[in-house]
Amino acid sequence: MALIVQKYGGSSMDGPERIKNVAGRVVNTKRAGHQVVAVVSAPGDMTDRLIEMAYQITPNPSPRELDMLMATGEQISIALLAMAIQELGEPAISLTGPQVGILTDSVHTKASILKIDCSRLLQELEQGKIVIVAGFQGMDAFREITTLGRGGSDTTAVAIAAALKADLCEIYTDVEGVYTTDPRIVPEARKLEAISYDEMLELACLGSKVLHPRAVELAKIYNVPLVVRSSFTEAPGTMVKEVSQMEKKMVVTGVAGDKNVAQIVVHHVPDRPGIAKAIFKALAAENINVDMIIQSAMRDGINDIAFTVARPDLKQAVAVTERVAREIGATGVTFRDDVAKVSIVGAGMISHPGVAAEMFACLAEEGINIHMISTSEIKVSCIIDEELLEKAIKALHRRFNLDKI
Amino acid sequence: MALIVQKYGGSSMDGPERIKNVAGRVVNTKRAGHQVVAVVSAPGDMTDRLIEMAYQITPNPSPRELDMLMATGEQISIALLAMAIQELGEPAISLTGPQVGILTDSVHTKASILKIDCSRLLQELEQGKIVIVAGFQGMDAFREITTLGRGGSDTTAVAIAAALKADLCEIYTDVEGVYTTDPRIVPEARKLEAISYDEMLELACLGSKVLHPRAVELAKIYNVPLVVRSSFTEAPGTMVKEVSQMEKKMVVTGVAGDKNVAQIVVHHVPDRPGIAKAIFKALAAENINVDMIIQSAMRDGINDIAFTVARPDLKQAVAVTERVAREIGATGVTFRDDVAKVSIVGAGMISHPGVAAEMFACLAEEGINIHMISTSEIKVSCIIDEELLEKAIKALHRRFNLDKI
Repeated sequence: MALIVQKYGGSSMDGPERIKNVAGRVVNTKRAGHQVVAVVSAPGDMTDRLIEMAYQITPNPSPRELDMLMATGEQISIALLAMAIQELGEPAISLTGPQVGILTDSVHTKASILKIDCSRLLQELEQGKIVIVAGFQGMDAFREITTLGRGGSDTTAVAIAAALKADLCEIYTDVEGVYTTDPRIVPEARKLEAISYDEMLELACLGSKVLHPRAVELAKIYNVPLVVRSSFTEAPGTMVKEVSQMEKKMVVTGVAGDKNVAQIVVHHVPDRPGIAKAIFKALAAENINVDMIIQSAMRDGINDIAFTVARPDLKQAVAVTERVAREIGATGVTFRDDVAKVSIVGAGMISHPGVAAEMFACLAEEGINIHMISTSEIKVSCIIDEELLEKAIKALHRRFNLDKI
Repeated sequence: MALIVQKYGGSSMDGPERIKNVAGRVVNTKRAGHQVVAVVSAPGDMTDRLIEMAYQITPNPSPRELDMLMATGEQISIALLAMAIQELGEPAISLTGPQVGILTDSVHTKASILKIDCSRLLQELEQGKIVIVAGFQGMDAFREITTLGRGGSDTTAVAIAAALKADLCEIYTDVEGVYTTDPRIVPEARKLEAISYDEMLELACLGSKVLHPRAVELAKIYNVPLVVRSSFTEAPGTMVKEVSQMEKKMVVTGVAGDKNVAQIVVHHVPDRPGIAKAIFKALAAENINVDMIIQSAMRDGINDIAFTVARPDLKQAVAVTERVAREIGATGVTFRDDVAKVSIVGAGMISHPGVAAEMFACLAEEGINIHMISTSEIKVSCIIDEELLEKAIKALHRRFNLDKI
């Protein structure tokens, strides 16, 4: 008997037929002799619709009240799934985040989990029940309802799996696993049988939507074995686990593209200490996440500083940057939102030099100009023109033989 | 400065414009120098839609999971109303039933309030906040979410007003107050300035939908001054208060009609002790509420027993009654669902004999046959043919001069 945590996303919970389908999967797992905790998201696009309702009331909803509002979506899901499981003849009970005892900090709409009290969960499991837990939500020390922000349900599932020392955490979604790249762009894209936490983390950060980076990070820290698979098919999915357990024959594991990128350049920045700090501290103060940063040494102690932000943050980021640019005596700020990021990821890169050069050569041969480059131990990312993104992904997927096993 | 509890029903919370309208009313009350607790229902027909979702999953949803599901409706309302009030510049905070500390028993979907812990409410009020409370819900001693059943939000409002010793409890609805009868049937119906708890209780039980009898009963016990008024107009509404404070010039205060009535007759029941008990205990065991009961002494120790139930219970009630009828040796059971109940209500009846006779005379003059009669100290109810109900209401309203001040 294993203890399995399953997570079902919003598309798996969209309507009675899909909820019954999820109930069937959960019940099958139980009847195969396992204990099951199912973590679920709000049905379909409900969270978006709730947020829309809030914005029909006010352009500035209070984060606390947004959490109060948004938490209802998952609560609807857990109640309906519990009913569907009971209808199949298995005992089940639904629990909200606060009822489980998912203790978070008080940062409404993007709370972090501090602790999970497993006593209620264990008590219900010991009574032979399937436990259905609302993803995405918890409570702070004052019993206020909090939500975990984007990727919250994945994070709830992994955190519960870690707290319960579960044997497996299955993330059910609407794709069959993790692919070498987006199959909608490259039909030859292959589903990976396994991928390391670090590779998954890079892919998740680079715009692959199957699994949220927060959840991957948590799984890595607590060494929770993850499987990403489809709730609509019986395909085995992709295992996410420690790299040491894996074959490392592939240098590059995947190619990712991300259009949610905008570039800002601060021109003619004086080359003295504290300039970068001035810009990026001001952006951080406004909660704007900066991704890639490049400072190019120019002539006569004058630099350009370029960086990227997510597109929804562009307007605010430009306003902040222009203010700081004036203060530090830069000559101007330009920006563009018609760029994209293409990345290659692979744990094998560490021991294979020249992978980055191979990527640049491939893009050059395709006539694709590179605006910015950023690297980590297991990935290389390039900012290119948005209109060339698909071409770049296809070329890189071919170049690194990702279509071949 | 007064402490005022306001209750807004589902029709007042149906959509952003109506929610903003409610927010304006709440804020005006605060700015007039009062402390305000607003108790709200789920928006529009949301509770019905949630229940429908449950029945798409299973014909037998567990009451616990139904409560988990239904409680989300009010939670959406409180979050949106808090946002709308904050948008108007007043501090506000929403609280679910469990967060307030509304402790109930564990009878899911029809829980009773056992206790309200006012500490959180008082703390927020002392900080100058408008407190928005989810009606209809609470939690039991195990922190399980419960709902209070029909009339739950009215009950929450009155219970909170009682617990806080509020100066006034205002029930906002989509009508301007309590009328002498249904204005859709009798255009001359007048809005009552005031009505006693007992009269309101009779009217509420007799099918007047403005206020739930549970809430009136609670208000009477704790002597909570109630006002029923419209959330769409500035009309002053109807005061519900102790009869001792009132003018008692009117003998009859109102005429009520109720079509949710079905009649069952058990024929030729042997006249021996325990027969009535056998029938009505069996019905009670199935949770079927019996309203009027008449036992008519016939010839030779043989009786007929007639009683009424709500129409949705008719089928089940007939099945139970037929079973018992066979056991006790009655000759048969007949039933009809084309009857209705017409009632006159008035605290003044106690000191004015002959009111019932006046009612029967009025119905007779209109050619309306009476099938059953039931009386209390302050009301007389008659079962008549359903098709004659409007005619009866109009005639009685005229007969007791309810169209004149």
